Amino acid sequence: MTVTLHDVQQAAERIRPFAHRTPILTSESLNQRAGAQVFLKCENMQKVGAFKFRGACNAVFSLSEEEAAHGVVTHSSGNHAQALALAARLRGIPAYIVMPDNAPQVKKDAVAGYGGQITFCKPTLEARESTMERIRLETGATVVHPYDNERVIAGQGTAALELLTEVPDLDVVIAPVGGGGLLSGTSIAAKGLKPGIRVIAAEPEMADDAYRSMKEGKIIPSVNPKTIADGLLTSLGALTFPIIHQNVEQIVTVSERGIIEAMRFVWERVKIVIEPSAAVAVGVLWERKVDLSGLKVGVILSGGNVDLNKLPWQG
Amino acid sequence: MTVTLHDVQQAAERIRPFAHRTPILTSESLNQRAGAQVFLKCENMQKVGAFKFRGACNAVFSLSEEEAAHGVVTHSSGNHAQALALAARLRGIPAYIVMPDNAPQVKKDAVAGYGGQITFCKPTLEARESTMERIRLETGATVVHPYDNERVIAGQGTAALELLTEVPDLDVVIAPVGGGGLLSGTSIAAKGLKPGIRVIAAEPEMADDAYRSMKEGKIIPSVNPKTIADGLLTSLGALTFPIIHQNVEQIVTVSERGIIEAMRFVWERVKIVIEPSAAVAVGVLWERKVDLSGLKVGVILSGGNVDLNKLPWQG
Repeated sequence: MTVTLHDVQQAAERIRPFAHRTPILTSESLNQRAGAQVFLKCENMQKVGAFKFRGACNAVFSLSEEEAAHGVVTHSSGNHAQALALAARLRGIPAYIVMPDNAPQVKKDAVAGYGGQITFCKPTLEARESTMERIRLETGATVVHPYDNERVIAGQGTAALELLTEVPDLDVVIAPVGGGGLLSGTSIAAKGLKPGIRVIAAEPEMADDAYRSMKEGKIIPSVNPKTIADGLLTSLGALTFPIIHQNVEQIVTVSERGIIEAMRFVWERVKIVIEPSAAVAVGVLWERKVDLSGLKVGVILSGGNVDLNKLPWQG
Repeated sequence: MTVTLHDVQQAAERIRPFAHRTPILTSESLNQRAGAQVFLKCENMQKVGAFKFRGACNAVFSLSEEEAAHGVVTHSSGNHAQALALAARLRGIPAYIVMPDNAPQVKKDAVAGYGGQITFCKPTLEARESTMERIRLETGATVVHPYDNERVIAGQGTAALELLTEVPDLDVVIAPVGGGGLLSGTSIAAKGLKPGIRVIAAEPEMADDAYRSMKEGKIIPSVNPKTIADGLLTSLGALTFPIIHQNVEQIVTVSERGIIEAMRFVWERVKIVIEPSAAVAVGVLWERKVDLSGLKVGVILSGGNVDLNKLPWQG
């Protein structure tokens, strides 16, 4: 395995001055609905409103002085872009951000607000990658991939590290899966601290490439996925897939309806703002597709960046 | 004074098995915007989604067995109704709730969900009170007024008690004011624990009866107020006014625009769901009408019950 518990622990030390140690919330309403004891790790309250800051921060502060001077570059539909822009600003280096032109306005504004230098491209993986490569050649910036990067994976694992430090007797951890950075980091931290823990992934039914990849034993890329969970559109990567294949018990898919219902339930009853991608993880409990009754279940709420002008349950 | 710090401390003991000790959150974005160090006491995460559970719970569990057997009755536009219904259910006694027929559907449903027996009436104070009196005579239930009740005031003060126990070096506490139950209880707890602390009230400009009452030195009733902060429509009471008059430094009024902007900012940046009445307290910092720069400011976020189908910033 390319990333270890020790890497996650080092990442935790490295990002400690910059990242929030996010709260862990519980809710009786949610426990009743889920039939389990649920611990919500609130990465929606992380800097930039998403766990992505952990990985980006670890990557940026791992660079040598010389590397750092040329800046960093990435492509991202939003949260990773904001995260990298802020991490770069904290280190005082440029961040070049390639964004799909259909990204939500609130995310474009946020990236610009953190000082990211945005280049827009078509919303395809090919367009993103070719644009990023062009910028890399022009500037000498270091590519910080949104998930297929060891430093990023180690950084993302620090959320689970904190969760298990505060609630060591968890039976299960659930994390959403898109590219697999959060999930692979979570699984390394959780299995490293507690080998018997069950790691379950949550994925939208409408973007079930990770589910299919696990079944086939190889990466099946996502083809034009359509889900409200816009943070989970990407496919597994060469680094994240083997980690997930080894550590993750199963990938549970959640319907669009389940995602929206779980999201609304959390807003209404837990009183926190989570984005659809975070609601996918709650959706595993909501739809009860896997029996977790009576167990202690940690859920990584990946983020809380939503456009408040238009909510998913509004027609 | 009719209610003392000792009463608040006793209330805290009494409600401990039933009420949440709510989180206290901080936010760098909010600190920057406010120019102060802000501590948010999250009563939006209290049972029934509002501080009102504290007062109702203290009132219900203070009743003798004989009184309790006849149940409790109140009139309320929402949060107090839910709170009393739940507290009564926890004690196993009936709760008769008089509600204005224009109360939000989500609040009607919630009261019914907690087992409250609802009687609807016209949305005037007179209709509410006469309907309640009729029910009291029919059932022998004990009236639990939403704010002008010593047990309720003592219960509401427990939020500030917790806040000051965890953050003892606060310079200022801000609470919203409608009928004054939360504000008077807050002021008793805060001044009792720390005589030098400043207690500031937050009130909608469009429902500024408490502001005018303080100025005139007597209760000026609210006349047909129109504000989005629907929890703050009521006027000060005979019990709450003198407590507030003695303890509260000033009442700061907040514009409707300030309420909505502060509410949206908290949702967007702090990632928690608060109702407009809670946003009024944040609005004092938002509009900077009083200089609190560099101070440690506790804010009681009164509740988080909103209709998620229609948000204030949606046209």
